Amino acid sequence: MKAFLPADRDVVLCECFARDGLQHETVILPTADKAALIGRFAGIGFTRVEATSYSNPTVIPQFSDASEVLRILPRKEGVYYKATCANVRAVERAVADQAQGFGANEISLLVSATDSHSMKNLARSREDQWANIANMVAAAGGRFRLIGTISMAFDCPFEGHVDPNVVMRDAARFAALGVRHVTLGDTTGVATPLTTRALFKRMQSELPEVEAIAHFHDTRGTGLVNYVAAFEVGVRYFDCAFGGVGGHPVKVKYGGGYTGNVTTEDLVDLFEAMGVRTGIDMGALLDVAQQCEAALGRELQGRVTRSGLNPLYRPKAAIAVQPQGAMA
Amino acid sequence: MKAFLPADRDVVLCECFARDGLQHETVILPTADKAALIGRFAGIGFTRVEATSYSNPTVIPQFSDASEVLRILPRKEGVYYKATCANVRAVERAVADQAQGFGANEISLLVSATDSHSMKNLARSREDQWANIANMVAAAGGRFRLIGTISMAFDCPFEGHVDPNVVMRDAARFAALGVRHVTLGDTTGVATPLTTRALFKRMQSELPEVEAIAHFHDTRGTGLVNYVAAFEVGVRYFDCAFGGVGGHPVKVKYGGGYTGNVTTEDLVDLFEAMGVRTGIDMGALLDVAQQCEAALGRELQGRVTRSGLNPLYRPKAAIAVQPQGAMA
Repeated sequence: MKAFLPADRDVVLCECFARDGLQHETVILPTADKAALIGRFAGIGFTRVEATSYSNPTVIPQFSDASEVLRILPRKEGVYYKATCANVRAVERAVADQAQGFGANEISLLVSATDSHSMKNLARSREDQWANIANMVAAAGGRFRLIGTISMAFDCPFEGHVDPNVVMRDAARFAALGVRHVTLGDTTGVATPLTTRALFKRMQSELPEVEAIAHFHDTRGTGLVNYVAAFEVGVRYFDCAFGGVGGHPVKVKYGGGYTGNVTTEDLVDLFEAMGVRTGIDMGALLDVAQQCEAALGRELQGRVTRSGLNPLYRPKAAIAVQPQGAMA
Repeated sequence: MKAFLPADRDVVLCECFARDGLQHETVILPTADKAALIGRFAGIGFTRVEATSYSNPTVIPQFSDASEVLRILPRKEGVYYKATCANVRAVERAVADQAQGFGANEISLLVSATDSHSMKNLARSREDQWANIANMVAAAGGRFRLIGTISMAFDCPFEGHVDPNVVMRDAARFAALGVRHVTLGDTTGVATPLTTRALFKRMQSELPEVEAIAHFHDTRGTGLVNYVAAFEVGVRYFDCAFGGVGGHPVKVKYGGGYTGNVTTEDLVDLFEAMGVRTGIDMGALLDVAQQCEAALGRELQGRVTRSGLNPLYRPKAAIAVQPQGAMA
């Protein structure tokens, strides 16, 4: 899997604020602000940024500007901008934009590990969704890096414990379609270090040609502990979002509960303190975190945004971080 | 170390809400409410509860009722109620209360790993504090279980990186005084799984007769990841507080930053989901968390208080937790 790692880092983080993060926000960010944020993420070292979603604008107005965001955001060598695609129509939009010289260079393909969640989240049975994915792969025609994502990889709020055999078969199915990056989603935040290690070890053993990606939610505060567990069994790709925004909309759909992505700034801080190189500019990390808070107009979940970077790996002079009128 | 473990659990958690938690709160809780909360903690299975502090009431008014709290709270076989003692006068108060048939049966002795922090936090140099501790041990006269605590065991905001040799010498000094429980404090939340494992492994190797206790702060969101790391190298005693309250007063003394203890409800949830028996009544955990929120009149940091217990180790019927007018 080392082949997929840029030389300057030990892990590749995908910053998801602009899509997964914004999807459930009520505020619609101006297109220029989105593009500026995404460009900033790339500017401080993220080589993967989830930029937008080619979704139906009447269903998700936040992403009605998908093409425009992708058109105006700054390009950077080696950076993948991901667009979420739910169906063939979405992939066709991505292809059309790319033909005009912009657009995403990475798209995601989503499957649920259980039928109940597939019906609720995608309005399709698992088998219908797999047919859909095959058509999407065909429509993509090799123009994009493909990211397969299996949500509810550990548990389903409707069906309970998820059989790891089902998850592994889904991962193999992605691989058979030529998808080389497969994400395991702890959608409802139920994984532990034990189950995290077990599932990723099995995936690496059974599908060594596939790059495993962890996309966990911090529903029960277990984001960092599970990501470290995954890292220590060899996972090198992780999804996260500044301020811990986004994640599974438990609150909206399932009646209560905290949700959220793993918080970028805290994850980067911990990895770097462990000597794990993220490739992120540590001098700019908290400034960008504050920029994300300013964009949403509220204090977010990042702990280091309040407390400062871990001083043990930084020169003292560099860590005198003061909130600079944080919301300004 | 197994000798110190009750038969019904794999770890012993010390619930610190009533002392470490309340110490920096502006609201003074009524004495009866404190005793009721402490009794509830013991009632749902905590065998160690930090109950109060024999401190100077003019300095810390919150604990001016120390003796009264200890007098009225319900006793329970096998439960240790800890009182924090800063000096010989405090130990003498603990002895006097115990002579009347109540009082604490566990007291803590605090040393800082650096002189700068010792002066700021204890108003004594390290050597003066060690003399103080020797006098306190003498005054205690074998009437209490003694808990030695080394704060700033990983880093000091004034002196930077702390030499592990200094920490180990302090731990050995406690052991030489007959103290059999020694706490390593990650006071400013800078430890990582790597440094956590290294320091506790070394302590177990050099002082096998000492029971190691972890008292970490969640300043950078690393509480759970470091506690799991400590558990996996053999640590069995952990400090935590409902709602993540308390912790090092970075905000008060050092100009900004999030602080807080490791959140009890999230820690218990994670341990139990890993099959690590905490001895805590899972059916009552969230109710007590909500009781703590009600006592302080605000929403606290617990994630499972909002999201519910991890469903993978509970019957579905037991996890339909709804916030019941949480602040009521």
